[in-house]
Amino acid sequence: MNIGIIGLGLIGGSISLGLRKSNFGDKFIGTDYNKENALHAVKLGIVDEIIPLQDLILQSSVIILSIPVDGIEKILPSILHKIRSDTVILDTGSTKYEICNSVYSHPKRSRFVATHPIAGIEKSGPIFANSDLFYKKNCIFCDSELSDPDAISIAEKIYSVMDMRMIYLTSQEHDFYISYISHLPHVVSFSLASTVLKRFKEEEIFNSMKGSGLDSTTRLAKSKPETWLPIFISNRNNLIQAVDIYIDHLKRFRKYLKNKEFHKIDRYIKKANDIKEKICIN
Amino acid sequence: MNIGIIGLGLIGGSISLGLRKSNFGDKFIGTDYNKENALHAVKLGIVDEIIPLQDLILQSSVIILSIPVDGIEKILPSILHKIRSDTVILDTGSTKYEICNSVYSHPKRSRFVATHPIAGIEKSGPIFANSDLFYKKNCIFCDSELSDPDAISIAEKIYSVMDMRMIYLTSQEHDFYISYISHLPHVVSFSLASTVLKRFKEEEIFNSMKGSGLDSTTRLAKSKPETWLPIFISNRNNLIQAVDIYIDHLKRFRKYLKNKEFHKIDRYIKKANDIKEKICIN
Repeated sequence: MNIGIIGLGLIGGSISLGLRKSNFGDKFIGTDYNKENALHAVKLGIVDEIIPLQDLILQSSVIILSIPVDGIEKILPSILHKIRSDTVILDTGSTKYEICNSVYSHPKRSRFVATHPIAGIEKSGPIFANSDLFYKKNCIFCDSELSDPDAISIAEKIYSVMDMRMIYLTSQEHDFYISYISHLPHVVSFSLASTVLKRFKEEEIFNSMKGSGLDSTTRLAKSKPETWLPIFISNRNNLIQAVDIYIDHLKRFRKYLKNKEFHKIDRYIKKANDIKEKICIN
Repeated sequence: MNIGIIGLGLIGGSISLGLRKSNFGDKFIGTDYNKENALHAVKLGIVDEIIPLQDLILQSSVIILSIPVDGIEKILPSILHKIRSDTVILDTGSTKYEICNSVYSHPKRSRFVATHPIAGIEKSGPIFANSDLFYKKNCIFCDSELSDPDAISIAEKIYSVMDMRMIYLTSQEHDFYISYISHLPHVVSFSLASTVLKRFKEEEIFNSMKGSGLDSTTRLAKSKPETWLPIFISNRNNLIQAVDIYIDHLKRFRKYLKNKEFHKIDRYIKKANDIKEKICIN
């Protein structure tokens, strides 16, 4: 079975390495608009060969589409048109509604499986790809009733061999929830980094004081615009709402502090502390 | 030389362990209003003995005051009154202006050294104390011209043996900068955790989606109110200003998204990305 990877960055590269580690699939072929990424991907053993997109589409039994979400929305319909009738194509985009919408009435819609393996890091490119990126992480399947059972089955097999846990949601549910769980934290982090950078002209003082919590809260601010701008655009309405609610929370904290309602801040912190026990993020 | 540690939590405990590791000081004596912490501190070898505060004050050549900042402000003046004339007392509080202010005209002011070793984590208590917590981290000395040279010298020695880098600022400068570098990130994180927790009643869905950036941005939200409420109160004016500027940044992002000014979001992200190169937080 030939596996075709479109987009040989962190996600596509890590899936490929994860599958190869488990001896899933025979030949791995890939393509990337970024020639350097493509070269690296071959050198790093992510794929056996770089071939033109049109050839990849015809030669692959499974196509994994792991490029920014605006790219997926743009090329998915035309790829679906060209695939063989038994090929399965799955995407790994971080938003799902617009992508699913782009092929909703497509005659070959059922060969497409919309998935979101959740394990991004702030780094990007094939050199950061690793076979264990998805180990024990979660993968969301969206609108899976619109895909053929055999297509779902192959996608499940792919994520199972990487030891992922599968969850099934509608694409609307996915985008709503993920706006709070992932997209808002990125906005929070970009905005905090901007605020702090603007305030510190003197790097010497900055460097002498960093280390006290800024590291973790600005980790996501290192993420690149090529990935994140399309995600924000694609999940615009949900994200605007999430940002509004977040600003309301901040304003409430600010009001308590301004009005010296310190017992309310105490309660505010204690409620936030629930993130520790209730949700077991380590 | 007897070292007295008032407050045997993460910070006091780690300093004690760090000094003992380097064979600095002879006997380590401690006190903590929390009896459990005090017991743990002896069991863990943080101090040799727990003794009443009044005895500790008289028996110590160096006193390290590592309790929440409101406690420091409250007891520092009376401790200063009671110390021997050659004793050095230093504090480790995360705010410095109010603390320095509380002893500004004190007859024994010069025996006090105001310091902030920057290396907190979201965990607390002596069981998390470790001798390497401060290794290669920064320690801010504030208003050091108000301390006797021999007192500064001993404090510098203490932080040097733990391999810390020393920086000298006024207490006002410290509090202004730290409001952006540490206090604002905590508010950001508490508020994000509150926002997300309120949105997710169903933990099942939450657990299936977490992992995509929320972990790092809500790490600080696990920090306890006993430490952080007094810090927020003590640095109230600076923090209100920092929160206002942060909200302005968020609103600007929100406006760009609402108005579909996507090229401006691209620039916004790129500017935030500077946190990576300019400031070398790893």
